[in-house]
Amino acid sequence: MEAESRPKRAVTRGEARHRDEWDVEFNRIVAFSDGVFAIAITLLVLALEVPESADDVEDALFRQRGDLFAYALSFAVLGKLWISHHRFFSVLERFDGTLMALNLVYLAFVVMVPYTSEVLGEFGDSSAVVILYAAVMFAVSVTFSAQIVHSYRARLVAPGTGSLEKRYAGPSSLLVAGVFLVSMPVALVAPGVATLMWLAIFVVGDRVSDWVGERIRR
Amino acid sequence: MEAESRPKRAVTRGEARHRDEWDVEFNRIVAFSDGVFAIAITLLVLALEVPESADDVEDALFRQRGDLFAYALSFAVLGKLWISHHRFFSVLERFDGTLMALNLVYLAFVVMVPYTSEVLGEFGDSSAVVILYAAVMFAVSVTFSAQIVHSYRARLVAPGTGSLEKRYAGPSSLLVAGVFLVSMPVALVAPGVATLMWLAIFVVGDRVSDWVGERIRR
Amino acid sequence: MEAESRPKRAVTRGEARHRDEWDVEFNRIVAFSDGVFAIAITLLVLALEVPESADDVEDALFRQRGDLFAYALSFAVLGKLWISHHRFFSVLERFDGTLMALNLVYLAFVVMVPYTSEVLGEFGDSSAVVILYAAVMFAVSVTFSAQIVHSYRARLVAPGTGSLEKRYAGPSSLLVAGVFLVSMPVALVAPGVATLMWLAIFVVGDRVSDWVGERIRR
Amino acid sequence: MEAESRPKRAVTRGEARHRDEWDVEFNRIVAFSDGVFAIAITLLVLALEVPESADDVEDALFRQRGDLFAYALSFAVLGKLWISHHRFFSVLERFDGTLMALNLVYLAFVVMVPYTSEVLGEFGDSSAVVILYAAVMFAVSVTFSAQIVHSYRARLVAPGTGSLEKRYAGPSSLLVAGVFLVSMPVALVAPGVATLMWLAIFVVGDRVSDWVGERIRR
Repeated sequence: MEAESRPKRAVTRGEARHRDEWDVEFNRIVAFSDGVFAIAITLLVLALEVPESADDVEDALFRQRGDLFAYALSFAVLGKLWISHHRFFSVLERFDGTLMALNLVYLAFVVMVPYTSEVLGEFGDSSAVVILYAAVMFAVSVTFSAQIVHSYRARLVAPGTGSLEKRYAGPSSLLVAGVFLVSMPVALVAPGVATLMWLAIFVVGDRVSDWVGERIRR
Repeated sequence: MEAESRPKRAVTRGEARHRDEWDVEFNRIVAFSDGVFAIAITLLVLALEVPESADDVEDALFRQRGDLFAYALSFAVLGKLWISHHRFFSVLERFDGTLMALNLVYLAFVVMVPYTSEVLGEFGDSSAVVILYAAVMFAVSVTFSAQIVHSYRARLVAPGTGSLEKRYAGPSSLLVAGVFLVSMPVALVAPGVATLMWLAIFVVGDRVSDWVGERIRR
Repeated sequence: MEAESRPKRAVTRGEARHRDEWDVEFNRIVAFSDGVFAIAITLLVLALEVPESADDVEDALFRQRGDLFAYALSFAVLGKLWISHHRFFSVLERFDGTLMALNLVYLAFVVMVPYTSEVLGEFGDSSAVVILYAAVMFAVSVTFSAQIVHSYRARLVAPGTGSLEKRYAGPSSLLVAGVFLVSMPVALVAPGVATLMWLAIFVVGDRVSDWVGERIRR
Repeated sequence: MEAESRPKRAVTRGEARHRDEWDVEFNRIVAFSDGVFAIAITLLVLALEVPESADDVEDALFRQRGDLFAYALSFAVLGKLWISHHRFFSVLERFDGTLMALNLVYLAFVVMVPYTSEVLGEFGDSSAVVILYAAVMFAVSVTFSAQIVHSYRARLVAPGTGSLEKRYAGPSSLLVAGVFLVSMPVALVAPGVATLMWLAIFVVGDRVSDWVGERIRR
C-alpha cells in the first residue's frame, strides 16, 4: 500500500517513527471498528427463521415479511452508519483515549442493532419494541455526534477539511438523533408512523451528506 | 496510513493527497467486504445440526447429507463470489458513493446466503426453497454486474485492463445471473434439476473466468 | 506500516529483510487478535433474548435487566482488554513462538467471555456463576501478565518505552488479576459484592493506565 | 508485505505497480484466511451450553467437562493450524488460481471444526463422532499439504527458504494427516485412545516444527 512514496520520505524525515506507530494503532482502531460493523451486519441474518417442518415451508417463508423488512432496514442503517464512521475517520489526523472510549461506547450500541432488529422483525407492531429500536439508534447517533464534537474540540481533525465537516457532519448526525428521539413518543401511539419516520432519514440524510461530501472531497 | 507524508506529497504532486486518502478508504471498503464474506462463509457451519440425543448420533450424522451438500455448495458459491469480487476490485482505480451503495446492496444479498443455504439443506426438495436460493443468488449476480457496469461507465477502472474485463467479466457475471433466473421456473417443476443447473455454473463459469484471467494478469 | 523506516534499514542493516517479513507476520498476529476481540465483543449480543410471544413483549424486555448489565459489563471488560492488548503490542519490537502461544492461550480465555457473560446475565445471583466469570477473567489477566513478563525477559519490547511499561503495565495487569482472584471467595458469600469489586477496577484501572499512558506516549 | 522487494523496486521501477497490485490481492487472501480462522476459533464458544434453569446451575456447569475439553482441544488445533498457515504463507512469493482454490477447500474444512468440536463435546464417547472429528482434521491436513506441494511445484515460494520448508513442512503436515487417518479405525474400538493420539500430535508436532522453524528463520 503506497509503497511507492516510501523511499522519498525516508530520505528527509526524523520524527517519522512516532507517526508510524500512531499509524499502526490508528489502523487497529479503524480495523477493529470495521470488524465489529462487518460482524454486526452479518449477524443480522441470524434473525431470519428457518421453517420448522416441511409441511408449511412456503407459508413459513412468506410469513417472514416482517423479518425481511427488519433485515433490510437494519442492513441499510448499519451500512449507512459504517459509511459515516468511515467518512469521519478519514478526516481524523490523531486520536486520544477519550475518542477510543467514545468509539467503544458507540460500538456497544451498534452491536445491539442485530438484537433490536430481530425483535423488531418479530414484534414490529409493539410500541415497546419500536421504542427500543429507536432508543438504541438514538444512542448510536448521540455517541457518534459526541465523537465528532470531541474530535473538533481536541483538534484531532485534519485542518483543511475541518470547518465543513464541523458545519454539516455534526448537525447531520444530530438530525438523525433528533428523528429517532421524536419517533419514540410517536411509537407509543402509532408504531408504524415511527418506522416511516426512520425511512425518511434515508432520503433526507443522504441528500445532506452527499451535499457535504461533494464539497469535502476534491 | 502514513498520514504524515500527505502534506508533503500534496506539495510535490497535485492529486497525491487525494490518492492516499483514497487508498485508506478504498482499503477499508475492501476489508469490510472481505470481513463480511469471511463471516458469512463461516456462519455456514451453523446450519450443521448437532444430534440431540446419544441414542441416534450415528443416524443423525448420516442424515445430514442434505445439510452437507448445502454447506459444500454454499461454501463454493461464496468462495467463488469472493474471488470474483477480489478480482474485480483489483482492477478498480477509484470508487464513488454509488459503487459503495451498490456494494452494500450486493453484500446484503451475500449475507443472506447462510440463511438460504440452511433452509436448502433442510428442505432441498421444496420448490419454494430452491426458488428462494436461486432468487438470492440472482440478486447477488445482478448487483455484482451493476457494480461492474457502473464502474466502467463512471471510469473507475484502471485503463489498461479495462476493455478485457468489460468484455468478459460483465457477460460472465450476467451468464451466472441468467442461469439462476432460468433455474427459478425450472424449480417449480423439478427442484433437483435447478440444483444441477447451479453446479454447471462452476464448470462453465470457471473456464470463462480462467480464460479471461489469463489474458488480464501479465 | 512503519514503512518509512524500511529503506533506511535496508541500507544500514543486513537483517532488514527479516524485519520486514516480521512486519507482515506481526501484523497478522495483531490482526488475528483484533479479529478475535471484535467477534467476541459482537457475539455478546447473542446473549440478549428475543421475547417468545407477543403477549408479554414489554415484560420480557424489562426482565432483561440482568442480561443488559452483563452485556454492558462484558463489553466494557472486553473493550478495556482490547485497549490494553493494543497498547502493549504497540511497544513490541519483535515476537517469538512463546509469545504467540501465550497470546493464543490468552485469546482462548477472552473468547470464553461471551459465554460466561451470558450465564452471568441469566443467573447473576448464583455464586458458581459469579466465580466462573471471575475465574475466566483471572485467567485472562494472568495470561496477559505472562505475555508482558515474557516480552521483557526475552527483550521483545522497544528499548525506550521499556522501563515505564514494565513498571506499570505489569503491576496494573496483576492488580486486575488480584481483584478477580479475591472476588472468587467473596462470591461464595455475596455474589453482588464480587460484582461491585469488578466495577471498581474500571475506576482504579483507568486512572493507573491513563497515568502510565501519559508518560509513555511522546 | 513484500517489503523486501521495495528498495529494489524503488531503484528500478517499472513492474512495481503490478507487484503492488499483487500485494493488495495477496494481503486480501491472507486477511480473508485470517478472518475465517478468527471467526471459526471464536465460534467454538457457542458450543458451551448455558444452563437452562436456576436450580441446577452448578451441576450444569460442572457437567460441561466434555464441552470444555472439546473447546480447549479445538482452540489449540485451530490455533496451531493458523500458526502453520501463517508460517507457510510468510514464505510464499506469489500465488495462483490453484492455490486460491486449494486454500478455499482447506478453509471449508477448517470452518467445520466448530461443528465437529461441538458434537465431540456432546458425544465424545461415540465412535462415529470421534471418526467425524478425525476425518475433518485429516481433510484439513491433506488440503494443507496439497497447498504446500502445489506451491513448490508451481515455484510460488521464496527461493532461499524453499528447500528446508519443502523437506520439513510437507512431511510434518503429512505426519499430522497420518495420525488422524490412523486414529479413525482406532476410534471404532476405543474412541478415548484416538483422542489421546491427537493430543500426542501437539507434543511431537511442535518439536518438529520448532526444529524446522529454527533453521528457517534467521
